[in-house]
Amino acid sequence: MLNFRPFQILRSLNSKRARFGVEMRSVFWDYSSNQLKMIDQRHLPARFEMVAFQDYRQVAEAIHEMVVRGAPAIGAAAAFGMALAALASRASERSTFLQDLHQAAEVLKAARPTAVNLAWAVNRILRVVQDSPAPVHELRALTLEEAQRIADEDVEVNRRMAEYGATLIEDGDTIIHHCNTGALATVDWGTALGVIRMAHEQGKRIHVLVDETRPRLQGARLTAWELEQYGIPYEIITDNAAGFFLRRGEVQKVLFGADRVTANGDVANKIGTYMLALAARDNNVPAYAVVPTSTIDLSLRRGEEIPIEMRSPEEVLGLQFKGEPIAPQGAKARNPAFDVTPARLISAIVTENGIVYPPFGENLPRMVRR
Amino acid sequence: MLNFRPFQILRSLNSKRARFGVEMRSVFWDYSSNQLKMIDQRHLPARFEMVAFQDYRQVAEAIHEMVVRGAPAIGAAAAFGMALAALASRASERSTFLQDLHQAAEVLKAARPTAVNLAWAVNRILRVVQDSPAPVHELRALTLEEAQRIADEDVEVNRRMAEYGATLIEDGDTIIHHCNTGALATVDWGTALGVIRMAHEQGKRIHVLVDETRPRLQGARLTAWELEQYGIPYEIITDNAAGFFLRRGEVQKVLFGADRVTANGDVANKIGTYMLALAARDNNVPAYAVVPTSTIDLSLRRGEEIPIEMRSPEEVLGLQFKGEPIAPQGAKARNPAFDVTPARLISAIVTENGIVYPPFGENLPRMVRR
Repeated sequence: MLNFRPFQILRSLNSKRARFGVEMRSVFWDYSSNQLKMIDQRHLPARFEMVAFQDYRQVAEAIHEMVVRGAPAIGAAAAFGMALAALASRASERSTFLQDLHQAAEVLKAARPTAVNLAWAVNRILRVVQDSPAPVHELRALTLEEAQRIADEDVEVNRRMAEYGATLIEDGDTIIHHCNTGALATVDWGTALGVIRMAHEQGKRIHVLVDETRPRLQGARLTAWELEQYGIPYEIITDNAAGFFLRRGEVQKVLFGADRVTANGDVANKIGTYMLALAARDNNVPAYAVVPTSTIDLSLRRGEEIPIEMRSPEEVLGLQFKGEPIAPQGAKARNPAFDVTPARLISAIVTENGIVYPPFGENLPRMVRR
Repeated sequence: MLNFRPFQILRSLNSKRARFGVEMRSVFWDYSSNQLKMIDQRHLPARFEMVAFQDYRQVAEAIHEMVVRGAPAIGAAAAFGMALAALASRASERSTFLQDLHQAAEVLKAARPTAVNLAWAVNRILRVVQDSPAPVHELRALTLEEAQRIADEDVEVNRRMAEYGATLIEDGDTIIHHCNTGALATVDWGTALGVIRMAHEQGKRIHVLVDETRPRLQGARLTAWELEQYGIPYEIITDNAAGFFLRRGEVQKVLFGADRVTANGDVANKIGTYMLALAARDNNVPAYAVVPTSTIDLSLRRGEEIPIEMRSPEEVLGLQFKGEPIAPQGAKARNPAFDVTPARLISAIVTENGIVYPPFGENLPRMVRR
């Protein structure tokens, strides 16, 4: 058993180190050493480890290996990765500097294909630098400033989403939550789990059924761990069991985040979301996606256009139960990391600008642009 | 890696030992030692172990602990358990003997509540004994004979289901299969997996997407292991991924067994079946339940009346990934072992008497009684 409360430790770490006096962050810039620091989420809940990065290539690798995961968190990590690239660039000419940044941008954006926040954050850094007439040494600082701004904004955006979303939650609700969408998946606070946390802090009594979320078990590993920190009652269930509890009438809301939302309201999210949303609809339980507008990709019309990442079979086959492997050696597996839930199954999309209801094709663009 | 082909070993074991010259059985009576023998399915695919039973209480325990699982297999195991009780009874009076058998029947039926085959097999033994005017020493033999008949019939019934079911499978089909319904889940051959095996033996090219089937991973552990033996191409997927492949149009059929079917066609089966059937329907892919008529319980009108077994949280929380636990210590979990798929999501029910199509309320009773 963990004999410490890791978030409290992180909070005290951060209060000493971070620049903006935030309480706790999963991804942050350490100004004393000019390093990017992140919680290594692969080892939770067994071990709480912070890792430091000085090279943007390592950041790309960490995103690919899911040291850091969650669409908003990988956006912030990539933004700081761009800052590392800027600091490491030896260019004295503006054009060479931009070339270095573009190279880093390509590497970072290639780390994972589905979450649009990654490209969104990297492109935002590039745009700010390109638009600035400042000399190269100032552009370096500008890159870090913009990355820090992306991280700070993420916290603020999450808090606003949580406030809007909490209006949907009623006292006594049992909520099924898929994957991890909490402080670990963002810079702080969380998207769907942020809504749950906010409702809890408002005094609403909530019970969370935590989808374990195979294959990487972000629900069992990370969401359960966060809920322990927050003191919110929960039970872990297998993903298979969500339909059982929905059909028994025990569930009032289904909540999840997203990795990309297209202009028509189709939602790419962690594999399994589609079947969960089907089961919610079949039982007249509302299913809400909680997403910052940076996750909404108006350049794509529908979910079929979203690139879906296929990950290693090892994530499926590498489990043990009581020390024994769970599949015959040499077994093959296929491992799509995301699926697309069609807009017709989404009851509403909660953003930092407000709650969007169908028809999404009409209402979503308005919400993003305002 | 397993360096032997366990089914071949079992086949040779059985060909020496079994009375009826069957090729391979998961559950069988060893006439040389008057013991019930079964494969210990908890350790597959890592280890292949046969276990022997002389006491019906141990059989009940083995059913509860899922040494043997699968509705038809636990029916046969319980029938042989009754034979062990009959052999162990010291009664010389008919009434005392019947009392002993009734006591064993209660213990065996209480081992697992959902699969009706368990009660069906035990009650069938009781009825045969009660209806016979023979003296006690003959009733002992009669009990074993009836148990053997149940086991032998199961093989035959499965083979006939497989033949009916195979008519639904087309050359080139990709099939999603949930849980394990093969030779291991029955006395031999299998229900849904028997259909796949039959279609394969008929020369149809088939690809199976094997739902890993959390929490106990019967798909990854047992179905993958059986498919390896049969030489049928397969890939393991997380249960969450079934919807992804269905939506991509890669799947032509969805197949599963059942633990109990009610008079209206509602199907209790391994947890996750309901969400899988929803995803099949949402993509116009037929979902077939393959069940012996012994699984059809006409005494119940609808699925809500089926008792659903809640199993230990340990089955959900006890996994390791790379040696690390997958949930915070002290985490709670809920673990329903089955769910009910409403008849409206079932395209057809394959039985040993033929294929039943909706309306099931009308067509199912006719098929059971004929």
